Amino acid sequence: MANHEFYMRLALDNARAMKGQTDPNPMVGAVIVNDNRIVGIGSHLKPGEPHAEIHAIRMAGEKTVGGTIYVTLEPCSHHGRTGPCAEAIVKAGLKKVVIASLDPNPLVSGRGVAILKEAGIEVITGVLERESQNMNEVFNKFIVQKRPFVTTKSAVTLDGKISTYTSDSKWITSEEARTDVHNIRNENMAILVGVNTVIKDDPELTTRIPNGRNPIRVILDSTLRIPLESKVVQDGKAESWIFTTERASEEKIKELENAGVSVFVTKSPGDQVSPVEVVDLLGEQLVSSLMIEGGGAVIAAFLQHQLVDKVVVYMAPKLVGGSHAPTFLEGTGIEKMSDAVELRDLSVEQTGNDFKFTGYPVYQGK
Amino acid sequence: MANHEFYMRLALDNARAMKGQTDPNPMVGAVIVNDNRIVGIGSHLKPGEPHAEIHAIRMAGEKTVGGTIYVTLEPCSHHGRTGPCAEAIVKAGLKKVVIASLDPNPLVSGRGVAILKEAGIEVITGVLERESQNMNEVFNKFIVQKRPFVTTKSAVTLDGKISTYTSDSKWITSEEARTDVHNIRNENMAILVGVNTVIKDDPELTTRIPNGRNPIRVILDSTLRIPLESKVVQDGKAESWIFTTERASEEKIKELENAGVSVFVTKSPGDQVSPVEVVDLLGEQLVSSLMIEGGGAVIAAFLQHQLVDKVVVYMAPKLVGGSHAPTFLEGTGIEKMSDAVELRDLSVEQTGNDFKFTGYPVYQGK
Repeated sequence: MANHEFYMRLALDNARAMKGQTDPNPMVGAVIVNDNRIVGIGSHLKPGEPHAEIHAIRMAGEKTVGGTIYVTLEPCSHHGRTGPCAEAIVKAGLKKVVIASLDPNPLVSGRGVAILKEAGIEVITGVLERESQNMNEVFNKFIVQKRPFVTTKSAVTLDGKISTYTSDSKWITSEEARTDVHNIRNENMAILVGVNTVIKDDPELTTRIPNGRNPIRVILDSTLRIPLESKVVQDGKAESWIFTTERASEEKIKELENAGVSVFVTKSPGDQVSPVEVVDLLGEQLVSSLMIEGGGAVIAAFLQHQLVDKVVVYMAPKLVGGSHAPTFLEGTGIEKMSDAVELRDLSVEQTGNDFKFTGYPVYQGK
Repeated sequence: MANHEFYMRLALDNARAMKGQTDPNPMVGAVIVNDNRIVGIGSHLKPGEPHAEIHAIRMAGEKTVGGTIYVTLEPCSHHGRTGPCAEAIVKAGLKKVVIASLDPNPLVSGRGVAILKEAGIEVITGVLERESQNMNEVFNKFIVQKRPFVTTKSAVTLDGKISTYTSDSKWITSEEARTDVHNIRNENMAILVGVNTVIKDDPELTTRIPNGRNPIRVILDSTLRIPLESKVVQDGKAESWIFTTERASEEKIKELENAGVSVFVTKSPGDQVSPVEVVDLLGEQLVSSLMIEGGGAVIAAFLQHQLVDKVVVYMAPKLVGGSHAPTFLEGTGIEKMSDAVELRDLSVEQTGNDFKFTGYPVYQGK
């Protein structure tokens, strides 16, 4: 007989299939089981359309009575565009509700469960909770903090270098890994690099896969050293937003704006653009996901401010050595090994010839 | 029905079980099959005792006639202490010989096969060849080059650092990984570090597992800066060999020798001890396996001279950052990414909380 995890996994699969079409809502899936048979499935398809539970209840029809509903996210308690799902579940005569994760918003978290329990419905929570949370990691952060979910991406050799000592980095990883990077770009609303990367590589920072969506290109440039002829300034392939400081010249700002680039003059206290101000400003612009492609000083600045949510590293089976060859995490660094930032759920998978690591920083005092 | 790989894998398993008791001979296993039944198995158990084929032939008795023998290494053609196995196979009436890998010694490689073929026996080679070669990687190198098989071992953070910028490295990896390091020490005849590691950490460099064998402790120290009170000088737990240059003082040499340490004064052309001279001298002393534990400059020097055969890296799920924090491969480094040293057969496995990488450098022009 199938167990809770079996049905929840189906609900997760149906939720995840809608990736990219539910924004700004989370992905949610539901499965209704009665007498050991699946009698309804549902997914949230599009903002403004019914939630996953409603689709599943409609499909099940009369077979909801006495049944169990599996839902990847706590049923809502609010009267939004589609009514509170918790009440719909009660009305449908379901006897049991199995939930993967509670609502991430602390203001409403647990309210849906409370409505269900008051109606005498058995509620089980936490089934495949981590999977559900990871699926909606971007939504979960943005809804609570109003800051983008930040993913860093780096490509390194086994000895940890992102280029040789002469700054040569073409190519560290295999074509498969480089294609995978474009999938990550496709899933992020914005992509961020430091101005040194623009000066050195003149990258397009676009998504080069079929039907790829280009992220907003964000460049940190405290004194506006960016060359006007850079691709991100001239090619018009995607929006470009430059974050600078009051040290930038008014004239260069105008030149860039004339070229169609948005310039944000931050009030950062130091000489450099403050990462905190960047994520706050991006959040105000409703940018919910940000990918940082480096270099190592930029990633270090965001990590130091505990702003990095997810770390992706492609590691190529090769060695270059060099005490002056850069790594993906520079800056001053942490003083004591015992204070290192741990990564939870660090996983590794093969991508072409390379290994892809994905992990989540755990900050002390958080 | 079982196939060639099935029987060869059994032969490999029986060979590998004798790890550590066949030196200076290779590990070898054999399986005899007749009429789809295994009728004999054998392993080389100890130098001076019969080879694997002879044990298997004895076990099979009359059932060798018309049978097939699987052997992990080409049967020998020489009249050594136990007679040529190729002739014993002919005499036993075996009809087919399946071999994993040929004899690594180019002077005799293929001779065993030739004897078998001349006798009208069918010979198949290359079945699980890479597994057999890797099993005897130390023997295979030493028998041909008279230099030790060199394994480097490093422990790094995900961002590639072997310590923080303040040189703090305790502890990067989990206890499981640190225990695994002692298993590698146990399998190596010598362990090598630079004098800076001795000055900084004052390590014992011993094997701290039950019944562990301590490797010879080799220290590179071009001007004999090693403190006389170092554990490797004083503790007498294992032999200590210091390689230095003519820049070392006669007095310090005598003090060290009085403490029971062997001092090798190399004639290296530069200011530093030459890695090539080190492996040649170790080879003359019949040291067939060497583990290098760093630091990054020492490993880089050996890699630059194409002397590293195997690279082991333990990677901890943590980040420390720092543009001045050292990596496991320092030195000048390689100039162009396209000239990076590739690693073949790079594998990864979980060791406690850490990932263990094992790979084999492929040198250009080799």
